[in-house]
Parts: sequence; C-alpha cells; structure tokens
Amino acid sequence: METSAKAPCSSKPVFNEGAVPVTAPSRFGAPAPADRPADIRAVMDETQAKIGFIPNVFLAYARRPEHFRAFMHYHDLLMKGSSGLSRAEREAIVVAVSAENDCQYCVTAHGAALRILGKDPAVADQIAINWRTADLAPRLRAILEFASEVNAPGFAAADERIAALRERGLSDDDIWDIAAVAAFFGFSNRMAGALDMRPNAEFYALGRSQR
Amino acid sequence: METSAKAPCSSKPVFNEGAVPVTAPSRFGAPAPADRPADIRAVMDETQAKIGFIPNVFLAYARRPEHFRAFMHYHDLLMKGSSGLSRAEREAIVVAVSAENDCQYCVTAHGAALRILGKDPAVADQIAINWRTADLAPRLRAILEFASEVNAPGFAAADERIAALRERGLSDDDIWDIAAVAAFFGFSNRMAGALDMRPNAEFYALGRSQR
Amino acid sequence: METSAKAPCSSKPVFNEGAVPVTAPSRFGAPAPADRPADIRAVMDETQAKIGFIPNVFLAYARRPEHFRAFMHYHDLLMKGSSGLSRAEREAIVVAVSAENDCQYCVTAHGAALRILGKDPAVADQIAINWRTADLAPRLRAILEFASEVNAPGFAAADERIAALRERGLSDDDIWDIAAVAAFFGFSNRMAGALDMRPNAEFYALGRSQR
Amino acid sequence: METSAKAPCSSKPVFNEGAVPVTAPSRFGAPAPADRPADIRAVMDETQAKIGFIPNVFLAYARRPEHFRAFMHYHDLLMKGSSGLSRAEREAIVVAVSAENDCQYCVTAHGAALRILGKDPAVADQIAINWRTADLAPRLRAILEFASEVNAPGFAAADERIAALRERGLSDDDIWDIAAVAAFFGFSNRMAGALDMRPNAEFYALGRSQR
Amino acid sequence: METSAKAPCSSKPVFNEGAVPVTAPSRFGAPAPADRPADIRAVMDETQAKIGFIPNVFLAYARRPEHFRAFMHYHDLLMKGSSGLSRAEREAIVVAVSAENDCQYCVTAHGAALRILGKDPAVADQIAINWRTADLAPRLRAILEFASEVNAPGFAAADERIAALRERGLSDDDIWDIAAVAAFFGFSNRMAGALDMRPNAEFYALGRSQR
Amino acid sequence: METSAKAPCSSKPVFNEGAVPVTAPSRFGAPAPADRPADIRAVMDETQAKIGFIPNVFLAYARRPEHFRAFMHYHDLLMKGSSGLSRAEREAIVVAVSAENDCQYCVTAHGAALRILGKDPAVADQIAINWRTADLAPRLRAILEFASEVNAPGFAAADERIAALRERGLSDDDIWDIAAVAAFFGFSNRMAGALDMRPNAEFYALGRSQR
Repeated sequence: METSAKAPCSSKPVFNEGAVPVTAPSRFGAPAPADRPADIRAVMDETQAKIGFIPNVFLAYARRPEHFRAFMHYHDLLMKGSSGLSRAEREAIVVAVSAENDCQYCVTAHGAALRILGKDPAVADQIAINWRTADLAPRLRAILEFASEVNAPGFAAADERIAALRERGLSDDDIWDIAAVAAFFGFSNRMAGALDMRPNAEFYALGRSQR
Repeated sequence: METSAKAPCSSKPVFNEGAVPVTAPSRFGAPAPADRPADIRAVMDETQAKIGFIPNVFLAYARRPEHFRAFMHYHDLLMKGSSGLSRAEREAIVVAVSAENDCQYCVTAHGAALRILGKDPAVADQIAINWRTADLAPRLRAILEFASEVNAPGFAAADERIAALRERGLSDDDIWDIAAVAAFFGFSNRMAGALDMRPNAEFYALGRSQR
Repeated sequence: METSAKAPCSSKPVFNEGAVPVTAPSRFGAPAPADRPADIRAVMDETQAKIGFIPNVFLAYARRPEHFRAFMHYHDLLMKGSSGLSRAEREAIVVAVSAENDCQYCVTAHGAALRILGKDPAVADQIAINWRTADLAPRLRAILEFASEVNAPGFAAADERIAALRERGLSDDDIWDIAAVAAFFGFSNRMAGALDMRPNAEFYALGRSQR
Repeated sequence: METSAKAPCSSKPVFNEGAVPVTAPSRFGAPAPADRPADIRAVMDETQAKIGFIPNVFLAYARRPEHFRAFMHYHDLLMKGSSGLSRAEREAIVVAVSAENDCQYCVTAHGAALRILGKDPAVADQIAINWRTADLAPRLRAILEFASEVNAPGFAAADERIAALRERGLSDDDIWDIAAVAAFFGFSNRMAGALDMRPNAEFYALGRSQR
Repeated sequence: METSAKAPCSSKPVFNEGAVPVTAPSRFGAPAPADRPADIRAVMDETQAKIGFIPNVFLAYARRPEHFRAFMHYHDLLMKGSSGLSRAEREAIVVAVSAENDCQYCVTAHGAALRILGKDPAVADQIAINWRTADLAPRLRAILEFASEVNAPGFAAADERIAALRERGLSDDDIWDIAAVAAFFGFSNRMAGALDMRPNAEFYALGRSQR
Repeated sequence: METSAKAPCSSKPVFNEGAVPVTAPSRFGAPAPADRPADIRAVMDETQAKIGFIPNVFLAYARRPEHFRAFMHYHDLLMKGSSGLSRAEREAIVVAVSAENDCQYCVTAHGAALRILGKDPAVADQIAINWRTADLAPRLRAILEFASEVNAPGFAAADERIAALRERGLSDDDIWDIAAVAAFFGFSNRMAGALDMRPNAEFYALGRSQR
C-alpha cells in the first residue's frame, strides 16, 4: 500500500468520471411523503429525529405498507427484542451474513450500526471484510461460525453440531436466535438485491468519529 | 424402472430396518397445549378443524410466541394477501425454492399445498424435483426463473433483468412479490434446517386423491 | 402451510394455464411398434403386462436397439442381480443420486419403485427430497452417504474412507455395488437430460395406495 | 520453465523419495489367472497380444465377471460401434470428460488411445489439460463443448441447445452418441475412483514415438 | 438499521469481550530493526516519513529480504509504473479482487489507498463490499468486470472477450495491465492468507477525513 | 482402452481436420528480435543455447520489458533460489497448482521441467492429472496438499493448519516457500490465460526419453 499523492501522469482521466450515483432508495421508488400512511410516517419521523435521516430501507418498503409493517415488526423483534445475544452480537451476525451475500445496502447500514453498538469500529470493519480473519473472542467466533453455516445454501444442522454449540454455552434459544437473525437477513439481503436498495450517504461515516 | 414384487432374495434385511422416525415437530420441542398462548391455540384449533392436523411449523414456532406471531403474520401476508400472483403461483415459488434448498419440511408441506391449490399434482411433483424440466406455461416459467435467481447466493438483480420481467407482463409489484416469497422461504427453509423441523405424516398424501 | 380451498380472488388466471405437457418419451422420439425389434418388443410387452404401461425409458432407448440392450442388461444386472444390497436399498441409491442430479425422469420412475419395494412411501419421498434429513437407519445412511460421495464431481475414494465403510459392515462387493449403482445412474440421469426423457403419468401415483 | 541440470544444492533429498507406487490394478485386487472365466481370459489374451499388456481396467473388473462383461460390451458398443463420430473423436470426448473429473486412470489410458487414434499427440495432450484452450477444429470444439455440458452436475439440455448442435451439422444420433460417451465415462471415472484403479506403466509412453 | 443507544439489557457481556487482537505483522514475525538490511530499512523509513507508519506488509516480507525486494519492485511497477490505467483505477482493481478473495489485509490497506487516490471514499467502500452494485462509470465497470474474470479459478480469456474490451476503448497494454494487477493481487492475497498478515490500525481511518 | 489401428469406417473425417494451431507465443504477439532489449536478448540466447528453443513465456513477456524483468527475477528467485524445498519439489507445486487452474501453458512447460528435474516422468504425469491420486511420498503429499489449499479462492490459513505442517517437519520458511510458489503460479496461470500463451511444441517430448 502506497498512498503518495504524486500522480504518475497528469493527463489521466479523473477517477470514475461520469459515474451517476443511484440516489433512489429502491428501483421501485418510494411514495411521496403525503402518500405515506400515518403510522409509517411516524416511524420515519422518529428515526429522522434520532439519527438525522431516514434509512432507505424505510422509504423502499413504504411502497407496500403492509410489507413495511410486517418486515419492521419482525426485524425489531429479532434485533431489539429479548434475547441471550446482545444487540451488538446480533448486528455482527447481520454484517457477517450480509458480507457473505455481498449485500451493498446491509453491509453499509448494519456495518454502521455495529460500529456504534459494538464500540469497536476496527473489528466491525474486519467482520464486514471477512469474519473468519477478524479479531474475535471465542464466543463471538462460535456465533458467527454457526450464522455462516445457516447462511450456506441447503443448510440443515446435524445433531452433533447443535450439541457442540450447547457445550459452548449457547442455550437453545440462543441457537434459535443466531439462526433466525442469520436467515432473516438472507431474506433481507435478497430483497435489497431485488429492489436495488441503496445505502444512504450518511451511513458511511457513522460510528467512525469515536475511533 | 422395474416394479415387480418378487424379491430377489428372501434373506435380505427389511428395508431401512431399525430406523427411528423423528416425531418431534422440532429439535427444540413444542410447548404443551396448556402452555400455548390463547391466540396461538386459536390458530392451531382453527387449522386442525380445517385440515385435520396441526402443521409442525405451528408447534415448533409456538416455543417462541412472539416469533410465531411475526412469522405467521408475514407468511400469511405473502402467501394469502393481495397480489398479482395467484396463491398457487406463490406456492409454486415456495416449492421450487425449497427444493433448490433441499428443505425436507417445506417441500413436503408446500408440495401438498401446491397439489391442492394448483389442481395439477403431476406438475406440483415435477416442480418439487426440478422446476426447469417441469411442464410449465411461459408465465409460470418466467416466475420460477426469477425466483430461482433470487434464491442464489449473492443475488442482486441487474436493470436489464428487471426490464425483461416487465416486458414479460409482470408488474413491479409482481416482481416484488416473487422476490419476497422466494427470499422469505429461503429464511423459512433455513429455520427448518436449524430446528430440524419435520413434516407431519399427513402431508404426504394430501392432494393426491383428486388425481 | 395452508390448504384452504377459498381462492383469494376469483379473477386470477388458472394455474399454469396454457402449459403444454411434453408427451413424447424423448426429444428424439420412439420407433413405431412395427419398427421395434422382436426382442425389444418382448421386453416391452412383458413389462406392460406386469405394470400396465411401458416406461418411457424403454421407448426412448428403442431408437437405438443396441443401446437398449446394453443399457437394460447392465441396469438389470446392477438393480436385480445378486448383491449384498437389497433391491430396495439399490433403488434408494438411485433416488438419492438422481435427486442430487435433479433428474426429473429418474426421481419419478425410481421414486415409484422405491415406494413399492421399500414398503415405506414416506421415507421414499424423503429420500427424493433430501436423503440427509430423511429418517434412515444407520446402514442405509452409510450407504447413501457413500453413494452421494461417488456422485460428486472428481470423486476418488481415500483408503481411510473405504476402511470406515468396511468397519461399518459393508463388504468389498457391497462397496463396489454402491459405487456402481450410484455411478451408473449418474450416467442414466445425464442420458435422460440429453434426451429430455419424460416420466410416464402412471409413475406419480404408483406405490402410494398402500399407505 | 528452466530445465538446466545443475542442482542448486546437492544435499536435497531425492525427489519423492520413499514413495511406494500402487501396483495393484484396483484396491479390491484381481483374480488369479486360473480364477478368471474363460471368455474373460480370452479377451485379456487377445489384448495382450495386440498391445503387449493387459490394461488394469480388465484385471479390476474381472473380480466381478458379470460386471466385466456388461461394462466391456457397453464400452465397446459406444467406443467402437457404428457412429457418426470417428473413434478418435470419441476418445477425445473420453479424455476431455475424464480430465474434468480428474480421473487418473482414464486420462492416462484414453490419453494414450487418443494419441494413437488421433495421430496428433500434441492436441491429445492439450485436451488432457484443458480442451477449452486446445487447438481444435470447429467440429471437435462443438463436440467437446456439449460433452462437457453433459458432464456437469444436474445436466439437462434445453431445446435451443440441441437446435444449435443440429445447425452445427450434428445429427440426432451424433448428439446421442456425444452424450452417451460423455455420460458413460462419468460412470467409468467414478468406478475408477471407487476402486482406486491404477494406470499401467505402459500407457505413459504409448503413442509418443510417432511424434 | 437502528442505532439507538438504549441497551435492551444492561447485564449483557461487553461486545467481543476477551478478544485478543493479533498485533504481529505476520504469523512468521518480523526482523528486529537492527536485523533489517539497509535498503529495506530505507524504504521503511521513507514510508514512515510519508504516511506515519510502516505498513505490515513491509515488516512481514522483511523476514525474507530477497522476497521483499522482488515483491516490492513488481508491486511498484504494476501499481505506480507507466500505464494507461490511472493509479486509482489500479487500486480499484486491487480492492475489487481482494474483496472477492476475502483478504483482510489487502481490502483494508488498499481500501485506504483507493479512498485517497480516488478521492471518492463512498465508491471505494462500495467496491470493497461488492463492485457489481457500486456506482461505477462504464469504463471502471468494464475494468473491474475483466479483473473479476481474471480472478476466477481456471481463467482463460476467449478471443471474443478480448475483442469486446478493445471495442470498449481499452488498448492491449491496458488489458495486460488489468490482468496483471488482478492476478498479482491474487498472489498477494494468498501470501497474506498464508502469513496471517494483519492490517495496521492506522489504515482504517485513512482517507475518511476528506469526506 | 483399445488401441487397435484398424479404423471402423474409412469414410470418417480426419481427426480434428481443419484445426489451425495457434503459433503465436501470445495473443498480443512478441517483439521482433531487433526490438528486444539487449539484456532480454541475452537471456533468450542463453536459454536457446541450453534447451534448444526460447520458451514462449519469454517471447510473450518481452512485449513489456519491465514486466519481463520483474517476472523473471521473481520467478527465478522462487524456483531456483535458496530454499528448503528442492527444485523438483517446487516444480511439482507448479504443476499441481497449474493443473487445478487448467493452465495449458504452465502444465505443459513445467510438466516438462518436472519430468527432467524429478527424474520420475510417470509421477510427473500423474501430478499433471490429479496430485491427489498420484504416487506420492508423505512429504511431497503434505507439500502439495498445502499448495492446493493456497490455490483455493479465499485462502487464509488457520493456526492449527500451520502447526500441523510444522509437526510434519516443514520449517516456517518452507511453508512460506510452498505458499509463495503456489500463489505466484496462480498469478502466472492467470497471465497465461489473459495472453492466450501457448506452449512451444518442444515441451511435449522433453524429459520423456529417459523413461
């Protein structure tokens, strides 16, 4: 890696010149503010107040209000509901699985969440690249290992595998939650890929200031 | 293929002798009837009255009532809610994707649903084996082709691919629904694999009588 | 899974409307009865007398009488000849391998044979979906595990693997037979794929009545 | 590539020192000459007279005389029987497929056959490494391309693909023969992998003298 | 994505508690400063003066001075030498390929270089996640598409593919350079994987300030 | 395998008739002798004097003299420099990896080198087909096993794996050298694939006479 500023040749084209960033939250667009149901508007307003912008996943799903509600309810249950896994651990599962699935939106948005909740931005970035070579404590490694197995096509867990996780100190509900978070984000990653969902520009810098 | 009944050798062991079928709905068990919340018991009772048994997915998820509710609500929205896709078409997506993911529970349970709703048990069985070589009308082939792409790891749809689906007569909401059903069952398949969820014995024969 | 008969919307198109089932036994057709050699006609007549129809594999191969004879001879030797494996166990190998190879014809035709010979239609259906999550006795699991390894591309067995099968109680001839049946059907599956061979409609219901 | 003879260091161990070449034709052995049925002995004697040694595939299969006969009959039908494909073209299919399947025995034995029958040892060696980058005439390239598709797991040919082969000048029987040779050797490759079948030392040099 | 600070449960373990970050530049260590050859020390001193730290790749390769020299010379020729590709374009190739290869060190170190040289940190982060869904101008997309093909196992370019790149305006030397940079970093990624090379902590924040 | 010379049908087309062997060293050509820099000409002259021809890799790289020098220097360092691995062992790594990558040029050229340096042409040919089923001594098997792991996409070595190699008697520098040779030829294989580099005709027969 060499970051010297001297350009080898001044006549080179500007990097990525002519690129037109996609700014729509999804290829299927988002309803105008006036067309958003009141409950959905309330969720958006609350989030905007808290983090300063409306994540594009909200705008994208608002096109189908019933889907918005079902998705967000399940998402919040899995990510913020009662669980033996901490919220940061759950975000780590999301980032690891989304990175394996090459999901632009989810790695970016949940990478930011993990940097904030985990309070360790370097390990968050490592998990976004390759959880296997990240600096993980044994518990988090065991969690991400199982999450990655769940994410593989044709997944079915052998009894011996579950027994090994139990011996590692994970309860049956913990095992359920690892699988549920990993599998739900396989679903979410694929929806992002169908919708061409785009990360808000604000996500990239979130959670880096505290470093 | 030769189906003659004369056994070549009478001393051979009985086929699969000693196998112990797994009868639990899931490796994590199910709450006793008295421990099931009233709303969940009501759903189970209604289904039992309608089809004569309680699908094991209900019993398995009842262990985590909040998960039961979130899963069933989203499931019913996707599978029975308003959509440009018929219910049989949605079941066909589920069977095709679950077969690609080798999901014992979902191919069996939704194979039964497809035989009933589609009123064409032979094509339902074909889709459970390989949708690519099934006798499909062009519309259903286009639907399953996209569902299978969504199911592939690292899925992200190119603009040209979406344009081709639109030219095929599928609306943006149809495309959304294909992706949502396919991806949601990728989630459901993986949960079944984590829980070692087992198909009820009743599913195997359902929808075959009308042939 | 929900099998209610009430359609959500009466205006939906009939499921798979316009599909034109392929009825030819193979894309290369079959000789007219008068053009079939006498020995081949005899085989067909005998089978028709026994099971009520001529499996399409017979009609498809009849186009090349020498191939018909070589294929059927080898097939019968492997599937009905003397072996330490029962005929049902051999059919289980065929179904497991053909399912891994997504072979429409062979899963359907040999699925029917396995339902009949194994006298356990549920486990036959399970093997057709995913032998790994089927209710298998240890011996059958060991057999299908090795058959699946043989079916993988680039297969070559390590000495340790063969030793483990021997310790499991399988003789060298049993190991040979597992490999031969699995590999021969990899051949047969690929021929079915080249010929676009189609299962006879009769296969779907065979062996289900006794359940 | 540098082929200088000066060793960098005289104290290095002799290359591959201590390797014990496997000399048995197969891990399951071969019957003693006296135990070979007369017809099989006759085939072996004839071959020995013609090429100077008995290919190990003969010795390996002799353990199961019925299998020997069925295999050799089908093999000879496919490889030497009447066909629109020349014998060298058929050997080229075998070598290409066996190389994709990493089959030590078949690449070596049929590589020798291809060098002899094709009278172009360089292109025979190229096909054994990678048929895609070999110096092929359009007809042979079309043949090997289809053979390689047949060899892929889950093969099923689309109508358009068959139409393209027909337009290329291949008859339906040619297409059948490409598929049959390719698929049969997928079977044979897997048997070689199960038996740990070993190429005779004589094969390596065969067909190289005429270069 | 939800970044609220309220923890659901105060008793949860600290995220990734007990993790012991690997701090060695490589699993094989680095020579003490006094043991580094003068020319290598000079390179290190110069880099330290310029960017404030010594990239771990320098320390890791210093264990084998001849390798250090050969690697760095080739690296600098490819990355800073005369080429029709700008330096930022070359870094984009490195990041795209290293992300495909899941290389912790190279994505981190060259991600930083790309943020600085490309002056577009968001697109640099996008390429590190998935170049296919990044906001790329057509020229950069064409470059990364070919780089990704080169990175695939068994790569060999067809004439038609090269012709398409030429029509896209890329010269033969450009095509060579794309391949050389992509392939060289496949080499470098694998060395990082063998050595367990670790990104310096400084890399994570580099090039983010200018956003 | 049957090598009889009697053709089954005299009217068959000559094998591979009309093939036009590619004779250029690379798709991007080679500079005329007069245009080759003196130092490069000297290397070519020396090699020609020693082995009787100029390997095409020299001619191909001569198009970019700086690349020629960097590549050949690094190549010679790895392949002929000081190492705990013998030169033949290093050539075995190259052949095994290049075979896995289906590299026409490298398998041919380094296959010749391995036949000469290893003085065991049969095992050289076996490694070119499939090192896993070659007759290898334990040390060479351990070396090629690790080389193959390095060659796999996404390679990163676990600590336990490195420990096992050390226990096997390989020093840290040996492990480094295995990885470096394997990974460098992954780079070289991909360059050959981009350039459509062709083996010189002389390579095929080299090292076979001494058998």
